[in-house]
Amino acid sequence: MNAPDPLPAAMSVIAPQIAPRPVPPALIEALRERFGERCSTAAAVREQHGRDESPFDVPPPEAVVFAESNEDVADAVRLAARHEVPVIPYGAGSSLEGHLLAVQGGISIDLSRMNRVLAVHAEDLTATVQAGVTRTQLNAAIRDTGLFFPIDPGADASIGGMTATRASGTNAVRYGTMRENVLGLTVVTASGEIVRTGTRARKSSAGYDLTRLFVGSEGTLGIMTEITVRLYPHPEAISAAICSFPTLAAAVQTTIQIIQLGVPIARCELLDTNAVRAVNRHDRLSLREGPMLLMEFHGTPASVKEQAELVQEIAREHGGEDFEWATTPEERTRLWTARHHAYLAALQMKPGCRAVTTDACVPISRLADCLLATIDEADAAGLPYFVVGHVGDGNFHMGYLIDPARPEERELAEDLNRRLVARAIGLEGTCTGEHGIGLHKMGFLREEAGDGAIALMRAVKHALDPKNIMNPGKIFPW
Amino acid sequence: MNAPDPLPAAMSVIAPQIAPRPVPPALIEALRERFGERCSTAAAVREQHGRDESPFDVPPPEAVVFAESNEDVADAVRLAARHEVPVIPYGAGSSLEGHLLAVQGGISIDLSRMNRVLAVHAEDLTATVQAGVTRTQLNAAIRDTGLFFPIDPGADASIGGMTATRASGTNAVRYGTMRENVLGLTVVTASGEIVRTGTRARKSSAGYDLTRLFVGSEGTLGIMTEITVRLYPHPEAISAAICSFPTLAAAVQTTIQIIQLGVPIARCELLDTNAVRAVNRHDRLSLREGPMLLMEFHGTPASVKEQAELVQEIAREHGGEDFEWATTPEERTRLWTARHHAYLAALQMKPGCRAVTTDACVPISRLADCLLATIDEADAAGLPYFVVGHVGDGNFHMGYLIDPARPEERELAEDLNRRLVARAIGLEGTCTGEHGIGLHKMGFLREEAGDGAIALMRAVKHALDPKNIMNPGKIFPW
Repeated sequence: MNAPDPLPAAMSVIAPQIAPRPVPPALIEALRERFGERCSTAAAVREQHGRDESPFDVPPPEAVVFAESNEDVADAVRLAARHEVPVIPYGAGSSLEGHLLAVQGGISIDLSRMNRVLAVHAEDLTATVQAGVTRTQLNAAIRDTGLFFPIDPGADASIGGMTATRASGTNAVRYGTMRENVLGLTVVTASGEIVRTGTRARKSSAGYDLTRLFVGSEGTLGIMTEITVRLYPHPEAISAAICSFPTLAAAVQTTIQIIQLGVPIARCELLDTNAVRAVNRHDRLSLREGPMLLMEFHGTPASVKEQAELVQEIAREHGGEDFEWATTPEERTRLWTARHHAYLAALQMKPGCRAVTTDACVPISRLADCLLATIDEADAAGLPYFVVGHVGDGNFHMGYLIDPARPEERELAEDLNRRLVARAIGLEGTCTGEHGIGLHKMGFLREEAGDGAIALMRAVKHALDPKNIMNPGKIFPW
Repeated sequence: MNAPDPLPAAMSVIAPQIAPRPVPPALIEALRERFGERCSTAAAVREQHGRDESPFDVPPPEAVVFAESNEDVADAVRLAARHEVPVIPYGAGSSLEGHLLAVQGGISIDLSRMNRVLAVHAEDLTATVQAGVTRTQLNAAIRDTGLFFPIDPGADASIGGMTATRASGTNAVRYGTMRENVLGLTVVTASGEIVRTGTRARKSSAGYDLTRLFVGSEGTLGIMTEITVRLYPHPEAISAAICSFPTLAAAVQTTIQIIQLGVPIARCELLDTNAVRAVNRHDRLSLREGPMLLMEFHGTPASVKEQAELVQEIAREHGGEDFEWATTPEERTRLWTARHHAYLAALQMKPGCRAVTTDACVPISRLADCLLATIDEADAAGLPYFVVGHVGDGNFHMGYLIDPARPEERELAEDLNRRLVARAIGLEGTCTGEHGIGLHKMGFLREEAGDGAIALMRAVKHALDPKNIMNPGKIFPW
């Protein structure tokens, strides 16, 4: 538990910290022997596994292994461990913070073929899936049970990747995040052992909470290959509504009051005018182009009605108007699909652009302070941006649209993000509500957690991965 | 991550595994110099800190330090670390599994004077308390805010102790356990550093979940001195009801259906006939002496009414009768106080007895199988017992009343417990829903988690406490 090595002052854009470790031909040969055509070194395959949604350019992994079982993963890790070569798990490739980039070289283990729903225990409200199952695939598989899995990050991410980043999404305000919804795991450790954590009981006091130690560990402590998650009964009644506000502040104040009153709202999403405009164009909608809350209520018909009435009253007090209801499942799906498209829709507002996305999350009472000051700064900076937010959780994303050919735009966006993160931490919040640290936020984590907590994390990492082969160079420096 | 050393076959009753480590006079002297009269070696004080509610007899700690600040705890740990002497945190002394016994000698750090509520952020539904604050003290301190803290183990435990054992209680079915309700911690590490984990944001993806690594670690990784917890608005309406059933099976089936239908019931407690009888006598109640569910509904008046009607319907289908309502706060308090007295009340049914208490928790669909088979075994064994259960979580406690002077009764009770735990694990459940492992369940943890998971836990322990001074000899062997 020594103090971590000094970090560069500005860690928000990170170059690989150390030179990639060589991948000896003997390892590639051994992988080919074990996996045949399921081990690829083709340039196109490597390139595909060397990128996520982050804006970093890093050389791709040296090889990609397509795993189909726990034993495949364990064997690949054991072979890599023998040669002290990094292994990086790959799910759907939708991470945002450079999680799957081979910054220290190594091989990628693609889990997308581990896509079987292993067990659905509808009577216990649990399911066990392989890590490559995506959230929409799980929901399709349980459609007939009357249950659903609520966690919905923007992308159709894999459950494994969502577990690794402690993902959440629009339903977290009511149903929690992956932290609350993973009951147990199968993990391949750094030495290639297959270990199970947790049980299917709803609660347990049996020893260290290994499950939650792995949830959010971004592949740095082991590879999660099977995940047991909680499911929920489809509510008897669902009602979605949109409400426009005269100002962003009014929308945020409405949200704060909803949460403080304990309304069990299922979704409470903010879109700023720019996001609404982008979504209108992308999904051919005709939403009123102003700050908007997109809400959903779950419960019995009577309880949904009560929640909706109370929220309408609060919204009215803040000048909310145009309360529009989506009553049919089709209308609701159309609305939430549009919400999930917001990121892509916004990208299309500035052709050829990329987005620098922020992820601050603060205590609900600090949300207005945090968000409005951030908007002021963004307006003053003159960079195009949009705002979408899981504001019921105190979490919002600024998306700064930058021209990748103009480094000064990237730097400006990063600078705005640095100021936002400092503000969020000052307000007792976090630099990342749901995206994770990856490469991008390593400096922020140190600001937020402090050297003492980082030292504890490093001690855990060194104990569980003494050769530093599990997705090295992420979260904090070795 | 080597395999753990072999354990004795029957670890359910444990003798100290290794001889107590000597406490050198120099340490006592240094503690006296630093803490003055707040360091005691008086026999009575040591005895008091060498016992909890478990049935083990172990020599007490060599000294007790009464800490009043983080710095006190840090200094005491640093001094102990210098001499490689064990330190054992002490809160309210209400743990059940031998957590605070000085099985390897050492000193006790009493946190009961760290009893200040440091901050109440009503607008964010959070509070930060020192570890010695008890659950009733916290609720008294926030009475005027309209908020409450829901976690309620039987005893008026300290929030620090509840965090250390990942406690829950009667409200967990709706509000979760300490796992879900601790947002952040101040921890004194094994090297005597003061480290903060987590933030006040509702969710975060910032690095390893140190908070939840410490929650449930039973003082073996560090001493938690400050805890930030979630609070909840007092529901607009609360309604409590008792319902008697012709059989225990009928009560359990009713519970299973309530949970499977997703009724947001706030409390769903089972008492068997023996427990009802004991409570009647102890609290001068006149409850009908048969298997009983004790329930509570939280929400708006309309939603409470809906929940209650649905549950009544389910109960009726299973022969439930005598649905009696406690409508005034006084009646409710009387009922729940009686429930919290069940353990003490049962002890009084057999003067001079002690209770061997079990804590299995299983997936809800397995609850009937698990509980009824256990009851059959208990009836066949002929030992007096009672059953209380947080059955909405699939968690129940058998209390076997034994004569401490008759070792064969203890052995019989332990044997019944072993069979229960094996059954619960076979049903994908856990050996402990809320009491923790302590000394008593070390063998069970190994059965449940397996050598691979134990190896991971040990690796974490060795990394964070390399001298093995933090409450050594608990959860798993070093």
